[in-house]
Amino acid sequence: MKLSERVLSLKESPVRKLVPVANRAKEAGKKVYHLNIGQPDIKTPKVFMEAINNYDTDIIKYSFSYGEPVLIHAIQDFFKRDGIVFSDKNILITNGGSEAVTFATIAVCDPGDEILVPEPFYTNYNGFTGEVSAKIKPITTKAEDGYHLPKKADIVKLISPKTKAIMFSNPGNPTGTILRQDEMDMIAEIAIEYNLFIISDEVYRGMAFDGLEGISMGTIKGIEDRLIILESVSKRYSACGARIGAICSRNEELMANILKLCQARLCVATLEQIGAAALYKLPQSYTESIKNEYQKRRDIAYNALSQIPGVVCKKPTGAFYFIFQLPVEDAEEFIVWMLEDFELDGETIMLAPAEGFYATPGLGRNEARIAYVLNEDGMKRAMYILEKGLEAYQQIHR
Amino acid sequence: MKLSERVLSLKESPVRKLVPVANRAKEAGKKVYHLNIGQPDIKTPKVFMEAINNYDTDIIKYSFSYGEPVLIHAIQDFFKRDGIVFSDKNILITNGGSEAVTFATIAVCDPGDEILVPEPFYTNYNGFTGEVSAKIKPITTKAEDGYHLPKKADIVKLISPKTKAIMFSNPGNPTGTILRQDEMDMIAEIAIEYNLFIISDEVYRGMAFDGLEGISMGTIKGIEDRLIILESVSKRYSACGARIGAICSRNEELMANILKLCQARLCVATLEQIGAAALYKLPQSYTESIKNEYQKRRDIAYNALSQIPGVVCKKPTGAFYFIFQLPVEDAEEFIVWMLEDFELDGETIMLAPAEGFYATPGLGRNEARIAYVLNEDGMKRAMYILEKGLEAYQQIHR
Repeated sequence: MKLSERVLSLKESPVRKLVPVANRAKEAGKKVYHLNIGQPDIKTPKVFMEAINNYDTDIIKYSFSYGEPVLIHAIQDFFKRDGIVFSDKNILITNGGSEAVTFATIAVCDPGDEILVPEPFYTNYNGFTGEVSAKIKPITTKAEDGYHLPKKADIVKLISPKTKAIMFSNPGNPTGTILRQDEMDMIAEIAIEYNLFIISDEVYRGMAFDGLEGISMGTIKGIEDRLIILESVSKRYSACGARIGAICSRNEELMANILKLCQARLCVATLEQIGAAALYKLPQSYTESIKNEYQKRRDIAYNALSQIPGVVCKKPTGAFYFIFQLPVEDAEEFIVWMLEDFELDGETIMLAPAEGFYATPGLGRNEARIAYVLNEDGMKRAMYILEKGLEAYQQIHR
Repeated sequence: MKLSERVLSLKESPVRKLVPVANRAKEAGKKVYHLNIGQPDIKTPKVFMEAINNYDTDIIKYSFSYGEPVLIHAIQDFFKRDGIVFSDKNILITNGGSEAVTFATIAVCDPGDEILVPEPFYTNYNGFTGEVSAKIKPITTKAEDGYHLPKKADIVKLISPKTKAIMFSNPGNPTGTILRQDEMDMIAEIAIEYNLFIISDEVYRGMAFDGLEGISMGTIKGIEDRLIILESVSKRYSACGARIGAICSRNEELMANILKLCQARLCVATLEQIGAAALYKLPQSYTESIKNEYQKRRDIAYNALSQIPGVVCKKPTGAFYFIFQLPVEDAEEFIVWMLEDFELDGETIMLAPAEGFYATPGLGRNEARIAYVLNEDGMKRAMYILEKGLEAYQQIHR
């Protein structure tokens, strides 16, 4: 029996493929600071477990395919804070943002169809599109531009009859870049002119620094029928393991069709939806406090990195990641070396190699993504270890 | 913007599409006995919520992409009871049996590839295959044969170069049929001869009546590398809303590739895995008690139905469903009529129209699926309402 071409051609997650290497380092007694994965060390708000512990039921029944009403209403209220109004039918609860991307792709793409995505991009977009035989067409963005979009002419020349949508995360993973208003307007303009869907992954919304707002595409007029917003509790509420996300769109035909996908897989876990509803009900002050915490960490990471000789990066303004160039030829090799061959008083760090965040071959080989998900002391120590590791690596590899 | 052909061509779940009709009946004050959906009224064992409530964590972190070790080990032990040995890498935890079917399909089928499935079949197989652009080729089975398989020659003539696998649920949903040993051997033989994968959906395993065992395909020798077993806690442990399932296979290349699909969607909800592990650790006596309870209900449903004039059905031997012929032209029309226009002292019932369980056009139009998921009193009452409803319907439609 042969496996399918599509599954064979999927690449391993660059964020997760080095996990066995890290595990061996830990088994050898090393402490590993994980800067490779967006798993925050911030506590999940207590309301999550409280809501679950207080949920009174004898039978863990199927939820509704479209989701628990209490959660849908909480998400509606969350968007209303920014003046964005979604009806009950405009929101479908999904198994994390992951399933939201998959369902959006299935709904707009047949096999061979394409989605424009600015690269570097969230690497699992490759998996979600590839496993349903759709393709990503990258819009290359550059470190020296702070990973902002190229001009319109450079984007529209990538559009073909196979192009069905433009998809991006804003604030951006892995870049930490927040789209400017003029970039958002340009995306809307292109989508209208070329009749494309806009898939706006807003799972980091609210995590915007230096006075930036990081507003939703939902605030832009004239694209209501073509806009698909992807949501998740994972990052904003530090509840990655809850696997609760949502697809939000005012296109009723689209939502009626995605509902069929929801019905096929029956429902999302009931208890986690109950917990997630409590998270969305947290006041705006919660998001503010999280934002401030990450801004502090961003400053530690950025200040430390930008002082390491040979490291190239621009100051990121959102999410909790950024990408930077390392003064090495092959970032993955360096990351593995840090785990296998380096330690500072029994400790080392783990980054994500950035090549997997690019679709264009050859790009990103000397880049890494950092997730600044550790507390201040942890971040400072991890940055110090990185600096010392890099020194040692360069002495060996000069 | 046009939606994809594949999403537009998906049919609504026959089990769920009449939910709005049922909701209107309830809003009008009717009590509806739900025999349309496999949502048992049996309590979820308390160990599930206890394990979750006792789970001590400040952060709801990502689980491992492959699943929580405690759950994987519990599933291993569950299979060992029947002498079936799976290593750690032979089991991947999924979002219910649903995701297990989807992942198995993606791994063995490229767009346009086919999977043989005995019909009537679990209707969501249509969704899981259609949304990833694979096709179901039905092996028609008949009420008069108790929905057992046709002879080998009738099956192999359906095989083409596009055929990648044979998939079935055993015990069968919606038929309630349990495969005989000779049928299981025939499937193995065909798979070996034609180099196919075998996707054995065993989520109802253990629910086998009248002294039948309902054994796993995992007990058959010589097919280790081509066998994919799908598991779930939903039915056996009455935990449908937990959304915990698994893919089990000894084909290491297959599992390494499905792991990439697991990595893309990051993980399955952490808490629900902790709860599910406690379920799999329940002793064999738990499954026995469940089996006895469903056998009682099966007897009530079957005895009542087989005495209604014009109803045709064979005694089912497993799961908690069966399909039967109604003395009406269009079962769906009758089911809607029962909800909208009929009541007996303010009560009515809901069945699932069976047409959607067939892939061959025209089959199953006068059939319905019953899920005997209510307790004895509920089942008796529901059967009485069905009998009276049918009498009234036939008087109007004669």
